[in-house]
Amino acid sequence: MQVIELRSDTLTRPTPAMRRAMAEAPVGDDVFGEDPTVNRLEAMAAECTGKAAALLVPSGTMGNLVAQLTHCGRGCETILGDQSHVFYYEQGGAAALGGIHPRTIPNRPDGTLDLEATTAAIRPDDLHFPRTRLILLENTHNRCGGAPLTPAYVAAVGRLAAAHGLKLHVDGARIFNAAAALGVSVRELAAPADSISFCLSKGLAAPVGSLLCGSREFIAEARRNRKVLGGGMRQAGVIAAAGIVALTEMVDRLPEDHANARKLAEGLAEIAGVAVDPAGVRTNIVYFDVTRPDMDAQALARRMKASGVALLAAGPRRIRAVTHYQVSAGDIEAALSAFRRVLAGDA
Amino acid sequence: MQVIELRSDTLTRPTPAMRRAMAEAPVGDDVFGEDPTVNRLEAMAAECTGKAAALLVPSGTMGNLVAQLTHCGRGCETILGDQSHVFYYEQGGAAALGGIHPRTIPNRPDGTLDLEATTAAIRPDDLHFPRTRLILLENTHNRCGGAPLTPAYVAAVGRLAAAHGLKLHVDGARIFNAAAALGVSVRELAAPADSISFCLSKGLAAPVGSLLCGSREFIAEARRNRKVLGGGMRQAGVIAAAGIVALTEMVDRLPEDHANARKLAEGLAEIAGVAVDPAGVRTNIVYFDVTRPDMDAQALARRMKASGVALLAAGPRRIRAVTHYQVSAGDIEAALSAFRRVLAGDA
Amino acid sequence: MQVIELRSDTLTRPTPAMRRAMAEAPVGDDVFGEDPTVNRLEAMAAECTGKAAALLVPSGTMGNLVAQLTHCGRGCETILGDQSHVFYYEQGGAAALGGIHPRTIPNRPDGTLDLEATTAAIRPDDLHFPRTRLILLENTHNRCGGAPLTPAYVAAVGRLAAAHGLKLHVDGARIFNAAAALGVSVRELAAPADSISFCLSKGLAAPVGSLLCGSREFIAEARRNRKVLGGGMRQAGVIAAAGIVALTEMVDRLPEDHANARKLAEGLAEIAGVAVDPAGVRTNIVYFDVTRPDMDAQALARRMKASGVALLAAGPRRIRAVTHYQVSAGDIEAALSAFRRVLAGDA
Amino acid sequence: MQVIELRSDTLTRPTPAMRRAMAEAPVGDDVFGEDPTVNRLEAMAAECTGKAAALLVPSGTMGNLVAQLTHCGRGCETILGDQSHVFYYEQGGAAALGGIHPRTIPNRPDGTLDLEATTAAIRPDDLHFPRTRLILLENTHNRCGGAPLTPAYVAAVGRLAAAHGLKLHVDGARIFNAAAALGVSVRELAAPADSISFCLSKGLAAPVGSLLCGSREFIAEARRNRKVLGGGMRQAGVIAAAGIVALTEMVDRLPEDHANARKLAEGLAEIAGVAVDPAGVRTNIVYFDVTRPDMDAQALARRMKASGVALLAAGPRRIRAVTHYQVSAGDIEAALSAFRRVLAGDA
Repeated sequence: MQVIELRSDTLTRPTPAMRRAMAEAPVGDDVFGEDPTVNRLEAMAAECTGKAAALLVPSGTMGNLVAQLTHCGRGCETILGDQSHVFYYEQGGAAALGGIHPRTIPNRPDGTLDLEATTAAIRPDDLHFPRTRLILLENTHNRCGGAPLTPAYVAAVGRLAAAHGLKLHVDGARIFNAAAALGVSVRELAAPADSISFCLSKGLAAPVGSLLCGSREFIAEARRNRKVLGGGMRQAGVIAAAGIVALTEMVDRLPEDHANARKLAEGLAEIAGVAVDPAGVRTNIVYFDVTRPDMDAQALARRMKASGVALLAAGPRRIRAVTHYQVSAGDIEAALSAFRRVLAGDA
Repeated sequence: MQVIELRSDTLTRPTPAMRRAMAEAPVGDDVFGEDPTVNRLEAMAAECTGKAAALLVPSGTMGNLVAQLTHCGRGCETILGDQSHVFYYEQGGAAALGGIHPRTIPNRPDGTLDLEATTAAIRPDDLHFPRTRLILLENTHNRCGGAPLTPAYVAAVGRLAAAHGLKLHVDGARIFNAAAALGVSVRELAAPADSISFCLSKGLAAPVGSLLCGSREFIAEARRNRKVLGGGMRQAGVIAAAGIVALTEMVDRLPEDHANARKLAEGLAEIAGVAVDPAGVRTNIVYFDVTRPDMDAQALARRMKASGVALLAAGPRRIRAVTHYQVSAGDIEAALSAFRRVLAGDA
Repeated sequence: MQVIELRSDTLTRPTPAMRRAMAEAPVGDDVFGEDPTVNRLEAMAAECTGKAAALLVPSGTMGNLVAQLTHCGRGCETILGDQSHVFYYEQGGAAALGGIHPRTIPNRPDGTLDLEATTAAIRPDDLHFPRTRLILLENTHNRCGGAPLTPAYVAAVGRLAAAHGLKLHVDGARIFNAAAALGVSVRELAAPADSISFCLSKGLAAPVGSLLCGSREFIAEARRNRKVLGGGMRQAGVIAAAGIVALTEMVDRLPEDHANARKLAEGLAEIAGVAVDPAGVRTNIVYFDVTRPDMDAQALARRMKASGVALLAAGPRRIRAVTHYQVSAGDIEAALSAFRRVLAGDA
Repeated sequence: MQVIELRSDTLTRPTPAMRRAMAEAPVGDDVFGEDPTVNRLEAMAAECTGKAAALLVPSGTMGNLVAQLTHCGRGCETILGDQSHVFYYEQGGAAALGGIHPRTIPNRPDGTLDLEATTAAIRPDDLHFPRTRLILLENTHNRCGGAPLTPAYVAAVGRLAAAHGLKLHVDGARIFNAAAALGVSVRELAAPADSISFCLSKGLAAPVGSLLCGSREFIAEARRNRKVLGGGMRQAGVIAAAGIVALTEMVDRLPEDHANARKLAEGLAEIAGVAVDPAGVRTNIVYFDVTRPDMDAQALARRMKASGVALLAAGPRRIRAVTHYQVSAGDIEAALSAFRRVLAGDA
């Protein structure tokens, strides 16, 4: 049975074009700066985010960690959302390894941070306090239903940061989804940020890799921080080649994933036993709750798996489904049929 | 003019008995474990908190930092209140120096953490997450109006911690105030905790020093952590001698400070231009808001200073006043008179 | 002009078989543990080092950093050679990020550490000292002329470590070269170690990746540490596929590289203006000194580059040349001709 | 029996004048900068080291740690002697807590570091290397027999540091002994350094405290670092008062300690069973070796203790004796008699 894979867009397998590109890429030693394919990908990434330079890293987690290590010294403080991936899912690496203190603000359901609360969280200059140095946004916001942050909002945070001498980093793991959903360019979404990272290996389907983008000085220092973490790779052009295909061929099709996610949410909204707000589904992520009292998220996920649909239990009654290029409109229909069958059956 | 000092109980000067004790104390080299006065103070501290051992440290901040370094390895997570002194006022030292990740829960107005929210914050065993290791309470809770946490509440948190294999540390900087306010023993308040620290230099009026108390193994390891921080002192008996006087002579008089704080709050409640809830004043800390629209906290504090009353602006419109052994009932009357005069006058 | 690349074996480009394997590899999401090619490579690595488990990491630096983070808590001490790659070339990451204190012992010319000096460096249990936790060897030893450490020596260090309750990690970036040079198995060289890392991307010519091997518990914890560093990759099977080819096809040919290195050293020994001890060349690394007084290492490297031979200036008068599968016996002849021409010419 | 205490000058007990000063000192809250006695001591310390500002810290270890945290960010490297107190006896705190990488140079017997080796240890700007930021000297040098470093030597290191954009910190725990031995001022010895720390609680006999001295900007930042470590103390004037007496009354008598140490060494040189070079004794520290084959350092120390002389076993056959104001010339005679008796007796 071919499983319909809705657990995550990180599960996408490389396309045939990517495989071909990897097999044919000219490569060199990237630690020496001599891999032409890496250099080309980094130039493309800088170009599409509107930054002066970019750096290939093995993962989104490393992109965010390198960004924080580069912006913040020992004992600096970062303001970020309490639902952000960096705070929630990255093992607290910035504190654990970098001595950076996280100051969380509650994320609103749309993934934003209240500007007033953010301003209030900036520390005065006093030896009782860490030094606030960085604001961190996530766009789209994974745990807030894949919500895209608008250019206006990001710009407002950028102004706030600049007004207080802070830096702004955007965890743009799914920034191309945000741009597609909002009908704006990634460049516009990145403009207010001092640095932005994005992933090749989620909706863009490349096997490995993320890019961190910023000023030339920032990236030079980030390169040092990548090295100390062990993220310097040798003939990384084989990875970068797939990334170039991802940026070239996979961006324009993201609206399909968003349409499929919306279709899934609308279908689920009509099925008894689960609850979802389709209007909240703006990109490729659908969170819904299991309301059938005799079934929890784990149980439903298990049954759906047995019916050929893989889902992620994200809480006691909460499930996450993510669409991507290996999920077709037909797969969504099939998944909805399975939901109907499973939720109509015995617990 | 003799200033009525209400900024903090840390401003208390040593009593004559303390001075005498310091001048006469037998001392030795405490790094060698040979200071008899330190050893006596540590034994008293262990006894009164009901723990097996205790350690003299130069400050409350070091007590809390040593406790965290001792309970938590690199990359462990602490659950603590977003208004707690440790998170708010200690420069983020546990993260900055120890690689410990803080996970904040909103403090309720009475200084407690919601038990359900605390439980929900405990991380599952998964490589995306830090490892939750410690819960941290503060008793009394400074930023929550000096609220004392009850034995029942602390015990409930202790059970929660134990049920999840976590440790509980109590920042008891003002634990003697809590015990006095609640009419219970410090021992009862400390019983559910794996470690507790308290200060000699706040309401107890000693010039310097805090004690960290816990099991024998915990204190042995804490002694190493004190040393690496540079908290190992030589003839520390001169400090400890004053601490012994503090524990012997200064504990029983704390209810006076609480009565004075209550009297101050009740007086303020009748003065136009400031707002306070006297019922919320349980120990020696009074927070009140400046409501006169043409005056903010800084302005009022400045004027009161000119009238001989020192206060701490704790927010744009918020002021803190703290009572202690150098503030008499008469001083409170005098301070209230000054408030009346100042708040009746021009801005 | 085709450059004869002697700067490093990290510059090797993937073989056609590797390219093919990358293009065809079955892959999955390795963060979920679902990449079959990664799983296969890790099993092969565990097998050939004789350990219970293995972990793919993006670089040798990350392999060593993860090993240290896994063996050592905050404030532990590692005993290692003052010429070791970990101390010399990895930005001090274990201290910078992990709070691990390095204690260096002078490396002897053969890459070993004196056992008596190593024993003397182990700290007694005293609060003035860090806690010694780990001994770290490098095999072959890069800065010691690529010297291989013998099974007898590694076993002696292993016994010393065990006798003092310490762990032993071997940085085996070029362990396959050591095994080839000594005519022993990697397994035998790894047996005394609690953990060993090796690189796919040096002499074995794979584009990216290193393996860290150890007990099942060690690797489970190492997996967490890889994640926090950002070394968790998604469809890492594309990298692992090349690694499998490296382990299958590239190991047996390493003696060719050693023969070429020896041939290069013997040739250089007969050329005026440089000095080298061919007897010291045991694997694929040749260090030699520029003795012509009017030329330094930079100058000679620049001229050789112009003559089509790339070398690494490793000190004011010191040059490193490394052989690998893209350097043939004919290339060595050609390189020696170029040396003769350049060193006979004007400065 | 009154023990003649030669284990360490840290064991000195406060003088009656110090006790009196502590009992009478005007004090305030030093965290608010309001302790007049602390302010006075800090001004005296700045004056006598010729620096713009000074900071009272609880211990020499904290002085050195604060200095390193203030000069060095995460991942910076310090060049220091392999026998230095900072590297040897301070639990590796700069690495453990501050992410600072120690690069050791072998101390020569006179406590100096070879200038050429120091220069060679400075890292080039390359992402494989930590960034060298600080050179650290110790004067007098404890583990090098209490050797004083001359103004000429310190100045040479200062020039070397400045030429490479590095900072120089002097661990001057016993800098007053160095000045006394060399007949120069502390100011002259401190002039080449960016920062210097010294202890009140060793030869100067105060119970607690060390001073860190440097530029106004340096001390402002050091104050933050003292706070995060928990070294901010409240009415620290009680400690500072003793320190003022130490600086006023105890400096001029240090030559007595040096004469006593020399006399002890000369006496020991004539006793069979121990070996010492009296010419190497320049200040108040005497290291000697137990040469009687049937006795080791522990055994001799134990017997001497039984005869009323306390010594420190500093190695398997090595013993340290330190003179100070509580050891008179008569005590040295008595100690030598005891040595003669014990070493003439059975093992």
